Amino acid sequence: MTILVTNDDGDSEGLRILLGVANKFDNAYAIIPNRQRSAVSGALTMHKPIRLHRIESNIHSINGTPSDCVLFSIFSKEFPKPNLVLSGINWGDNAGIDCLLGSGTIAACWQAALEGIPGIAFSLAKKERNWHKEGWGEKEKIAGTVEKIIKTLKPKLKPETFFNVNLPTDLENAKIVYMQKMQRDRFGVAVEKRIDPYGNPYFWISGILKKTEKGTDVHEVIENRNIVISEIPLSIFEKP
Amino acid sequence: MTILVTNDDGDSEGLRILLGVANKFDNAYAIIPNRQRSAVSGALTMHKPIRLHRIESNIHSINGTPSDCVLFSIFSKEFPKPNLVLSGINWGDNAGIDCLLGSGTIAACWQAALEGIPGIAFSLAKKERNWHKEGWGEKEKIAGTVEKIIKTLKPKLKPETFFNVNLPTDLENAKIVYMQKMQRDRFGVAVEKRIDPYGNPYFWISGILKKTEKGTDVHEVIENRNIVISEIPLSIFEKP
Repeated sequence: MTILVTNDDGDSEGLRILLGVANKFDNAYAIIPNRQRSAVSGALTMHKPIRLHRIESNIHSINGTPSDCVLFSIFSKEFPKPNLVLSGINWGDNAGIDCLLGSGTIAACWQAALEGIPGIAFSLAKKERNWHKEGWGEKEKIAGTVEKIIKTLKPKLKPETFFNVNLPTDLENAKIVYMQKMQRDRFGVAVEKRIDPYGNPYFWISGILKKTEKGTDVHEVIENRNIVISEIPLSIFEKP
Repeated sequence: MTILVTNDDGDSEGLRILLGVANKFDNAYAIIPNRQRSAVSGALTMHKPIRLHRIESNIHSINGTPSDCVLFSIFSKEFPKPNLVLSGINWGDNAGIDCLLGSGTIAACWQAALEGIPGIAFSLAKKERNWHKEGWGEKEKIAGTVEKIIKTLKPKLKPETFFNVNLPTDLENAKIVYMQKMQRDRFGVAVEKRIDPYGNPYFWISGILKKTEKGTDVHEVIENRNIVISEIPLSIFEKP
């Protein structure tokens, strides 16, 4: 078995933890975006050339998106074709339908599913959204939990299906909860107008945390502090 | 009623046709990406400021994605809040699950649905993928068909649902077909390696047209040359 590890944060501690765990299972290598690509969704880079950059023997980056990384892994002939795609570990949870559609971390798994390859996306529900302020904490505990989850999910992997896993920060008391009901909006949106030094307006689009709704994935990971696993098959698009 | 018109091709004939039709129904205005953003999916621009540029009194562009355009329209206070989002008309069909997830045209409608606003995405199944080679053809016929479709769909619009409409080029004999079964892959993928003038490799990711599968949206618009309308509610994420 060959495992591709990718993410949307670029080279980061979350990536290194996941790659370390993946290596325990099988041959694993990472292809990642060469910069932060959070909220890039399933964007593909089809209008400009892709360059491949070596970070370490088993970590490469491209000037592309998480979905590009998956396609590059499968179709470029530069790497062995993966049987499994692991994405993450993302800084910040990816719960809710808006994250399911907008997260680059999850988009890598959508792309894998479209190519018939199973995937698992991992996200850690950090409170601080500026990751320079807060460290990754007990990395070994995170790695141990991720390893346990991959072992649990391995027999359940299917070609056109992926699992979206959200981890709370306090893993000590966390249970695994399988959950399908996703909150519609993890984030509200603000568009803030500012004035530049030349007197001209510019705008910031940003996400605002919404109230969690009971019975949803968002509530389960944020309020109940459990590990939430949602199974997403492509067949949802067949009979709405 | 207020209508936002957006797309992923930027200022283009397809946009102008759709805006013209929208104006027949109600107050309509356009916010569009300031450059080609095909295949940008639901990417959001959250890491850099947005600038607003006036093209005409009712057409503005931003340095953002189709999803950004929808959020800007709703939350910036620069425009009246829309009750309906129309996206397109895209050059090239957007049939198949890969297009449903990867198309910027469709992503605008996903974003609208996430904000509780109904949407309709329009795409024209042009054969030529280089749009400099082939014109839009009989624009009045396209406009007339789009107007008819909006009239038909207007009573069916729902807050967390959008319609994906694919039009064949020969509209004369086209029937409207409501269809849910989407082909998994409208496009296959190639990653082609080339060598630059300095002897270094670079790569092109590109889409290759796949064989159409009978009974799917792709087959219906491409082979049977009918107008295909798929209804996509956010509720598909609730009980897979």
